[in-house]
Amino acid sequence: MDYTEEIIASMDSRRRARFINSLSGFKSANLIGTLDKEGNENLSIVSSVFHLGANPALMGFIIRPASVERHTLDNILETKAYSINSVCTDFIASAHQTSARYSKCVSEFEAVGLTPFYKGKKGPFVLESSIKIWLELVSHQTLEVNSTELIIGEIKLVMVNEGAVMPDGFIDIEALDVATVSGLDSYHMTQRIGRLNYAKPGHRLFPLTREGEPSSWKAIGLKNEQGEVE
Amino acid sequence: MDYTEEIIASMDSRRRARFINSLSGFKSANLIGTLDKEGNENLSIVSSVFHLGANPALMGFIIRPASVERHTLDNILETKAYSINSVCTDFIASAHQTSARYSKCVSEFEAVGLTPFYKGKKGPFVLESSIKIWLELVSHQTLEVNSTELIIGEIKLVMVNEGAVMPDGFIDIEALDVATVSGLDSYHMTQRIGRLNYAKPGHRLFPLTREGEPSSWKAIGLKNEQGEVE
Repeated sequence: MDYTEEIIASMDSRRRARFINSLSGFKSANLIGTLDKEGNENLSIVSSVFHLGANPALMGFIIRPASVERHTLDNILETKAYSINSVCTDFIASAHQTSARYSKCVSEFEAVGLTPFYKGKKGPFVLESSIKIWLELVSHQTLEVNSTELIIGEIKLVMVNEGAVMPDGFIDIEALDVATVSGLDSYHMTQRIGRLNYAKPGHRLFPLTREGEPSSWKAIGLKNEQGEVE
Repeated sequence: MDYTEEIIASMDSRRRARFINSLSGFKSANLIGTLDKEGNENLSIVSSVFHLGANPALMGFIIRPASVERHTLDNILETKAYSINSVCTDFIASAHQTSARYSKCVSEFEAVGLTPFYKGKKGPFVLESSIKIWLELVSHQTLEVNSTELIIGEIKLVMVNEGAVMPDGFIDIEALDVATVSGLDSYHMTQRIGRLNYAKPGHRLFPLTREGEPSSWKAIGLKNEQGEVE
């Protein structure tokens, strides 16, 4: 069906929010951990964290200004640092509950049953998360198009089980039980189809093992560009 | 293991790129379809498309300026419009191959075996994609932190099978075989754990059916916040 601009505009606001939120595809699921100046903890789920660059190592995410994420934004602007923690498939309900509008004096860690964790002066991290990242704020801007806030941070520390880090640097986040989100409220686990090698014009693709070694379509159980298992 | 700033800086550039690219979690997989002024088609896979807002309906994505996506950026700046098309699990190899550095005169559609599709003056879309979106450029900026380009577009048309659009507006993108990416090169299919209702302080979460109706943890086979199936 064709959903025209007019049809989309005629949807009631909640239906439109669910519809439009579903369109970009699967989203990352992360918890942002912050402190205010008094040391009060805050934790907020976001599905907008994206990779921005590897050198310098940068990540971005979006905050809606009038949302419950406002405390997160205030804290980041106060302390200039924050943690990004993976949402894993075994605690999606606790992670989702952090999106409730708790008052500023309530620690979402306590309210939802997740465990704050500190590494020296860095934290709070989410102990239960399989990937824990510490970032320092490098840039903050209000996007004129709709007054959302774009937060960009530089990665200062990554805590992850080294068994999930492949020799070529790829991290097997599926083995780390990282969840993915679609729309506003749907949580998913994943199943790897395969890794693919670096693409070049005129060269046929070949699959890689999980470790990043060359493989065959048959060994990986993958179909090639022609839909055949060679 | 703790990957400190120093350890990350000491990685060779390809290993660091794979490592840092894996950290944000699962990413959306989309193909951007564009035309240049002469009507030559271009198609490029991107894993950075993100939801920016529902009213107005906006999506953003990131382009690295020195990358193969340069043709995409040039075309968008020329024509002020583009399509975003979902990468589905049955054509990940063709989609991945669009990342090869083809010269500007080559149509990636032809090179990788995907089918250009037009709807009046809108296109090219990817016929094989289960979600096809037409956007008009509303904003373009170079991010100072690393000279990547942030492209923001407003949604003008969505083509999707209405059987996948639930009564409450949620689109079941898993039923539409939409793929997700991790790192630079790993493609995944998904399996829904569950939808969860709107979270409020002091209210227990409950799961939703795929259609957005209230359900029980037991009926959905989900664990509640305490890890029990009620």
